[in-house]
Amino acid sequence: MDVQKEALRIVKLIDKQLMSYLEDGKPEKLMKAVRHYPEAGGKKLRPVLAYVVAQAVRRQGKRAIPFGCALEIIHNFTLIHDDMIDEDPVRRGRPAVHVLFDIPTAVIAGDAMFARGYEVISETKTSPVILNRLYKLTSRTVWLIAEGQQMDFDFETAKTVSPDEYLEMVEKKTAVLFSCAAEGAAIIACGTPSQIWNMREYGRMLGIAFQIWDDVLGVTGDEKTLGKPIGSDIRNGKRTLIMVHALSQLEKRGNKRRKEALLAALGNENATQEEVTRAIDVLKQLGSIDYASKIAIDYAEKAKRSLRCLKNSREKEFLSSLVDFAVGRAH
Amino acid sequence: MDVQKEALRIVKLIDKQLMSYLEDGKPEKLMKAVRHYPEAGGKKLRPVLAYVVAQAVRRQGKRAIPFGCALEIIHNFTLIHDDMIDEDPVRRGRPAVHVLFDIPTAVIAGDAMFARGYEVISETKTSPVILNRLYKLTSRTVWLIAEGQQMDFDFETAKTVSPDEYLEMVEKKTAVLFSCAAEGAAIIACGTPSQIWNMREYGRMLGIAFQIWDDVLGVTGDEKTLGKPIGSDIRNGKRTLIMVHALSQLEKRGNKRRKEALLAALGNENATQEEVTRAIDVLKQLGSIDYASKIAIDYAEKAKRSLRCLKNSREKEFLSSLVDFAVGRAH
Repeated sequence: MDVQKEALRIVKLIDKQLMSYLEDGKPEKLMKAVRHYPEAGGKKLRPVLAYVVAQAVRRQGKRAIPFGCALEIIHNFTLIHDDMIDEDPVRRGRPAVHVLFDIPTAVIAGDAMFARGYEVISETKTSPVILNRLYKLTSRTVWLIAEGQQMDFDFETAKTVSPDEYLEMVEKKTAVLFSCAAEGAAIIACGTPSQIWNMREYGRMLGIAFQIWDDVLGVTGDEKTLGKPIGSDIRNGKRTLIMVHALSQLEKRGNKRRKEALLAALGNENATQEEVTRAIDVLKQLGSIDYASKIAIDYAEKAKRSLRCLKNSREKEFLSSLVDFAVGRAH
Repeated sequence: MDVQKEALRIVKLIDKQLMSYLEDGKPEKLMKAVRHYPEAGGKKLRPVLAYVVAQAVRRQGKRAIPFGCALEIIHNFTLIHDDMIDEDPVRRGRPAVHVLFDIPTAVIAGDAMFARGYEVISETKTSPVILNRLYKLTSRTVWLIAEGQQMDFDFETAKTVSPDEYLEMVEKKTAVLFSCAAEGAAIIACGTPSQIWNMREYGRMLGIAFQIWDDVLGVTGDEKTLGKPIGSDIRNGKRTLIMVHALSQLEKRGNKRRKEALLAALGNENATQEEVTRAIDVLKQLGSIDYASKIAIDYAEKAKRSLRCLKNSREKEFLSSLVDFAVGRAH
């Protein structure tokens, strides 16, 4: 299955509805900031996931669209605040919100989108009991995202970060929202308890795999596909799984030349492209990129196993292909 | 009625519960940031309001406590982001969150508290239908707060701001949350439609009156009561109703000396205490402080009229005294 083509088809189904949720409000500057990231495209994986899961469980895809859109709005709110925190100037090939506007507007637009996300959840055509489950699930999820963001930020100045700490951070910062999309959609579609549980697991494993692969692409991809400069994670001092592995390897082996090459770029905003390239070479030599890729693939396999609770369908096939896409994107 | 003493009695009822909602989570730095403002005290007017309104409508005060706490948590989230945006270094006599920790932690802690607020709403012992009304009301409210914050921020660089624009900003930035507390409490207490509507109006009028009076105190109060430096609004270039009036008066009358004295301090972060004092004198001479005080008193009277829908009770008396307190605090 051509998962990108199929995802695009679904994005077309939901995109107009998504943007319609971001029309109402003022002042215009705030609304422009609110629409800036969703307008720029993005993969819109979370609403696609919600749609397909609800469709796979009980052909209730359409009913899950508002919930999926709500999560996409919430996702974009976290991106705005994240880019500001990381001082990332570019997102999806366009200037970040805090750059195009200013820091206060970025903070406020993020807050506003969080509120709008909740307003959109209430558009779900379902029972009040299910609606409450969605609200509760989403609130818990956003709390965990904040925990993950804080961990991620604290890692930048931490002496050491273990792979387990990294995985906990990634689960919270990224995977819980995938998990929320899949679980919420299964709830909306009135899935069995086992389906709801397995869809949650599917989203979680997919999310972790996706993020680790994203980190891999961050050092091996190209700027155009990525929409941001190669190695910006390194310049920002991000402790990705790759970096966590590399630092622990250097600790063990103590190769001074490699260590110097890596530390010249890590957390150095002014690192030259050459220094970044040399740091990436070290990551390759230490086997850190292969190490992270392998872990991503392990999670991807677990995600696929969670799909056994679903009857065979085109949508189940899509969910399986989505896993392959998440960990197989070009690099 | 000694409204402060009575409010303190109610704060004691709810405070332990409020803080218990802010215990669960990690990392510790995030949790410290989350608890920093609620721990420092504050008037906790929103949960007090929710408690008393629910009590006045149908003796359901206790049932409204989680909702009141949720709004207090949400209020504190907006304060954290607001202080960061305004670069206010002090709140409640303690360093602001972005100063004590850092800007990223302030952004994340605010986001986390917003999510926790929603989690706490779900603790309300009520029907799913009412719970949904509370979620929807709260989401709408926070969206409007964001609109108000954006207006407030944009005003700092606006050429002119009219009194109507100012009042719209204040209604959104401050009054809607009072309104949400009173309306939500009336909903929880199963009030009549008229009571629910009137409680919303009460909260709105009280909130506007309260904020205008706060602006008055900001130039006439003392630093200790205020918990922040006198005239910080002037230094920040805030367009309070007082300032809006003064600027339009100067436009009309064109007194050059007074204009220079005002503009020397307005939006000038490095203004000396003497320059600020001279600016405040100009505000007094132009009658701007009296003008704003009178408008606050008008809103206060409207708030009191909204209380007619309630049977006489100790709580109704409190709500009436609260209005007097809001616009009568020492200056």
